[in-house]
Amino acid sequence: MGIGAFAAAQASAAELLAPLKVEPWSTTPGAPILEHPYGVPSLFEKGVVRRAAKAWPLPGAASSMTPLADLFGSITPNGLVYERHHAGVPDIDPAQHRLAVHGLVSAPKLFTMDDILRLPSESRIHFIECSGNTGGEWNGPSGMPVQLTHGLLSCCEWTGVRLSTLLDEVNGAVGKARWILAEGSDAAAMTRSLPLDRIIDRAMIVYAQNGERLRPENGYPLRLIVPGFEGNTHVKWLRRLKLVDAPLETREETSKYTNLLADGTARKFVFEMDAKSVITRPSPGHKLTTHGYYPISGLAWSGRGTIRRVEVSTDGGASWRNARMETSPRERALTRFEADWQWNGGPAAILSRATDSTGYVQPTREALVSARGLNSQYHYNAIQQWRVDANGDVRNA
Amino acid sequence: MGIGAFAAAQASAAELLAPLKVEPWSTTPGAPILEHPYGVPSLFEKGVVRRAAKAWPLPGAASSMTPLADLFGSITPNGLVYERHHAGVPDIDPAQHRLAVHGLVSAPKLFTMDDILRLPSESRIHFIECSGNTGGEWNGPSGMPVQLTHGLLSCCEWTGVRLSTLLDEVNGAVGKARWILAEGSDAAAMTRSLPLDRIIDRAMIVYAQNGERLRPENGYPLRLIVPGFEGNTHVKWLRRLKLVDAPLETREETSKYTNLLADGTARKFVFEMDAKSVITRPSPGHKLTTHGYYPISGLAWSGRGTIRRVEVSTDGGASWRNARMETSPRERALTRFEADWQWNGGPAAILSRATDSTGYVQPTREALVSARGLNSQYHYNAIQQWRVDANGDVRNA
Repeated sequence: MGIGAFAAAQASAAELLAPLKVEPWSTTPGAPILEHPYGVPSLFEKGVVRRAAKAWPLPGAASSMTPLADLFGSITPNGLVYERHHAGVPDIDPAQHRLAVHGLVSAPKLFTMDDILRLPSESRIHFIECSGNTGGEWNGPSGMPVQLTHGLLSCCEWTGVRLSTLLDEVNGAVGKARWILAEGSDAAAMTRSLPLDRIIDRAMIVYAQNGERLRPENGYPLRLIVPGFEGNTHVKWLRRLKLVDAPLETREETSKYTNLLADGTARKFVFEMDAKSVITRPSPGHKLTTHGYYPISGLAWSGRGTIRRVEVSTDGGASWRNARMETSPRERALTRFEADWQWNGGPAAILSRATDSTGYVQPTREALVSARGLNSQYHYNAIQQWRVDANGDVRNA
Repeated sequence: MGIGAFAAAQASAAELLAPLKVEPWSTTPGAPILEHPYGVPSLFEKGVVRRAAKAWPLPGAASSMTPLADLFGSITPNGLVYERHHAGVPDIDPAQHRLAVHGLVSAPKLFTMDDILRLPSESRIHFIECSGNTGGEWNGPSGMPVQLTHGLLSCCEWTGVRLSTLLDEVNGAVGKARWILAEGSDAAAMTRSLPLDRIIDRAMIVYAQNGERLRPENGYPLRLIVPGFEGNTHVKWLRRLKLVDAPLETREETSKYTNLLADGTARKFVFEMDAKSVITRPSPGHKLTTHGYYPISGLAWSGRGTIRRVEVSTDGGASWRNARMETSPRERALTRFEADWQWNGGPAAILSRATDSTGYVQPTREALVSARGLNSQYHYNAIQQWRVDANGDVRNA
């Protein structure tokens, strides 16, 4: 089948003829048990960390990005989940933390963390993507690697309480309750207004990610998750849910997180993240060392449902073929895809294109710019191309 | 519905009448971005770590256990995956690491890590359980908390290459190849013989767990995963796969990892982990603080398929009711279950019982001892009971 046919060249001919070499780590006992009661990665992986795309003037109002080029499967390990903060990471004592559920409800209530942990729970795997993710590509190839173009994207198993369960605890909404205001307890008091009927069946108030309590930078001890919605609606360090009759026009839905169109009008309350995909391996920074077989691996996701299909092109979009699903597609979760490729050593241009369960197809950059102009800033989800040079370099160009 | 009816007592009456308190972390900017390029848990969670059940005479030949009582959902975060080593944790340079596939194969080959990363991959969520897990309960309640009774148990998304793909790379098995020997490159050279026809469709050679490269203590850079089989067959730091005609009767399948029956004979090559479940919250160390509603939460798994049903009893097994699935049941993966419980403040005895997709029902301790005696040591999977005292203490008694 030819797979790996050229790869064996990487073990030397001498090695292939000799007995298996006994390395020093096979002759000396290794590190004792519990050297790390809470484990850490190998030092050989020390370069696999979150990074910022730029130096931010205020390091508390900044973001850091997930190293997608070095990751596998669909789960993002907690230490590498992307960060986006508006006033830094608060250090919250969970024993002091409270969640108020008030406004247009029958019986307003203040919840302790113990209260919340005593409610029925649910665990689901969902992606989170910042609406600003990939915004640097609106004007064409930025030259950046995938960590810095697409790394405001992560996927975890979240555990918590359904919003509907919490509303039952305050005996339900009353009157003209149509929206819900979520407020964080960080110093920016991050707030977003959310349409109740669109989120009631899927929003969760979560306290755990990937099996353990939330990390401080991901909202410890409590976070709102609205699967499929833009990341900033997943309000971290959640202190307050207020039921109201109309959106409150907070800073984060007026000066920020609206999408400016070419005609000067702005799209507001654009919540769902549309279907998108990106090739993560090979991607800029990787180098193809020999000709022959390579798996093309990447991620696909949709805020509107599951991934139905991912196509891959290696000739700049002239022809496409279906990729296989490398992980089980799950609703509003990252799906890993993989396609076979025989690299003949010539220049190539590799792309991926996602289709979701609604039938929506990820657009080209030209189609997206034609619909939204160049000032939209948020919700950039166009097909991403990487160029492969004859010397094996991979570039965003 | 009564859920949480007593819980609000934990927020004081004064708090309920006052405006939401503004905590210091809401008025001062928090920690800057990238304070931790690779993130760490909140200091408030510093007690959530792996622990050993005893002081081991050789700290390199030992085990540490996952803190199940403090975890959620079905995924185990990488820093808390249990450890079991026979000669400590080797510090392996992946650039120097090789995997030999040899013996009864057409074209023996030495693989570098780059070679393996260039093969088609697959990601799947599976549990791993040490066959010695819960062995301390053979003689009745040990008094230990769930971390130390059931914590040789974890569940990750694993990414790697199917064994069948790797065998294609050596042009397949030849002659009387019926078994495969897997050898680790730790100083113990951990080896196990495995029946080829039973593992060929599911075994994987993995390099990543939960999205990132394997942790050193979990086999970095390469590990064999045999979903559903006892944990020690998932050979870590994998250096060699040799196809052979019969099991090699290695130390780990003769002096260890056989199950001694009451009549003096031993069960050998007992690979699949039978269906099992355990309640993790409330469990010993937790305290019920007020009467009223509590969710009973736990884990269920089977090495032979998916979990079809979990039943819970709160009266020592006199009556049972179905729990709901808190996570999606997946093949040979941990499934979180949850059942509603109104604690009336009296003594109680809480138990869980799993049924898998083959129809197998988790046995009572009495049934298990009757079948296997008291010297079996491995593969203890009986129903586990926790006692709840009138003062809210939970005990393994």
